[in-house]
Amino acid sequence: MTMRAWEEVERDGKRDAVAIEEPLEIRVDGRPLSVTMRTPGHDEELALGFLYGEGLIDGPHEAGLTADFAANTVEVAGPLLRDPGERRFYTTSSCGVCGKGALEEVAVASAPLGPGPVVDRSLLVALPDRLQQPTFELTGGVHATGLFDARGNLLIAREDVGRHNAMDKVVGRALLDGHLPLTDGILCVSGRLSFELVQKAAVAGAPILVGVGAPSTLAIALATDRHMTLAGFTRRGSTNVYAGAERVRG
Amino acid sequence: MTMRAWEEVERDGKRDAVAIEEPLEIRVDGRPLSVTMRTPGHDEELALGFLYGEGLIDGPHEAGLTADFAANTVEVAGPLLRDPGERRFYTTSSCGVCGKGALEEVAVASAPLGPGPVVDRSLLVALPDRLQQPTFELTGGVHATGLFDARGNLLIAREDVGRHNAMDKVVGRALLDGHLPLTDGILCVSGRLSFELVQKAAVAGAPILVGVGAPSTLAIALATDRHMTLAGFTRRGSTNVYAGAERVRG
Repeated sequence: MTMRAWEEVERDGKRDAVAIEEPLEIRVDGRPLSVTMRTPGHDEELALGFLYGEGLIDGPHEAGLTADFAANTVEVAGPLLRDPGERRFYTTSSCGVCGKGALEEVAVASAPLGPGPVVDRSLLVALPDRLQQPTFELTGGVHATGLFDARGNLLIAREDVGRHNAMDKVVGRALLDGHLPLTDGILCVSGRLSFELVQKAAVAGAPILVGVGAPSTLAIALATDRHMTLAGFTRRGSTNVYAGAERVRG
Repeated sequence: MTMRAWEEVERDGKRDAVAIEEPLEIRVDGRPLSVTMRTPGHDEELALGFLYGEGLIDGPHEAGLTADFAANTVEVAGPLLRDPGERRFYTTSSCGVCGKGALEEVAVASAPLGPGPVVDRSLLVALPDRLQQPTFELTGGVHATGLFDARGNLLIAREDVGRHNAMDKVVGRALLDGHLPLTDGILCVSGRLSFELVQKAAVAGAPILVGVGAPSTLAIALATDRHMTLAGFTRRGSTNVYAGAERVRG
């Protein structure tokens, strides 16, 4: 279900298109699990992608929007793979140096990535321009994630005020379509490359993640650990490859 | 305590400065409360600012970094003002229309903002350039928040891979210095204006919030509700005022 992602707002006597942000509560078997501030639309994808990225589901569970759409709630049918109350983040003295110890503590388990495609550097450089961002063009207020095939064709694109949500919506759509893991897929995000985005991409099985913005140290460390190709600062005709350079030609 | 916020990483045979991202666990009386992915440094400020923004403390509680800094943990002395397990987010059928009902459900209570200063539009426009961002200049990978006085003098500036963290660090510093509420202060952020940033600014008592990026609908609605001045797209010599225009001259 697609909803309008923006609305007109008056300011200084003019009309501006502004990205909509509203809370969405994700419930599992009627029990509240999480609330995220998101742009309405593709809410079932968001819920499923989020649960998949957290390692809580491994298939397209039945999900439904509540009849009263204004309730901003998605109901997902359980059971989950593990107790969501279990703390995923746990810091010990092994943390703090971006070493393997820290990664093991904070990371969601994911299967090793396959070899994936080898692509031209010029293909990676071209992806951000192919990422459809109609709401961004109107509002300047949303992030985007796109899933591309190994030839650089756009398969799925989603926008959201939360960059993690845009990624979750893409992964949720791929899950519903039976396309996980993304063995030969390339994910491209409009912003920076954080640890959490690398983690979501890794859990979804994507061998290549491209970002328009900068990576963090932990994003690079996790990508290296999972043998993922991580390319940042992909703009103005160039890209920096921080991990997995063996998948990039030229 | 200030730590180095970036480190050198090798890629494509060159050396790049990359913003550090690591987990920080916030503990209250020894009990884990929250984990955030942040740039190390000013961790006590981050913890105190976070707790203040959540309405969990109202004064500078004693905080301490654990002796083993690598543990990435901040200990804060309780007690808290309310049970942190209490759900702050609760969506009902009144949600979903960005109306007052939705705001009441998701918002942390905050005292009404004072009248605050009236400032020239040109002063707001000048703030982003005065926001010191040394780590951003090196890495391109962090957000910044600055606290300015009503004449546009920078009082506190903090950077972080998480934009909410940069705001929390500024609020935490102000709390430690006895400067809350920020009755005559202006907060300026390097990115977009989300609901949560407006909420943190409102709880800190700041009458004016300026952002380089776009606001969301719920950010505008909350600012309007709290009589906060909200200015977005503050760049290239102009700014858009979305709420509280009575504090802006010209």
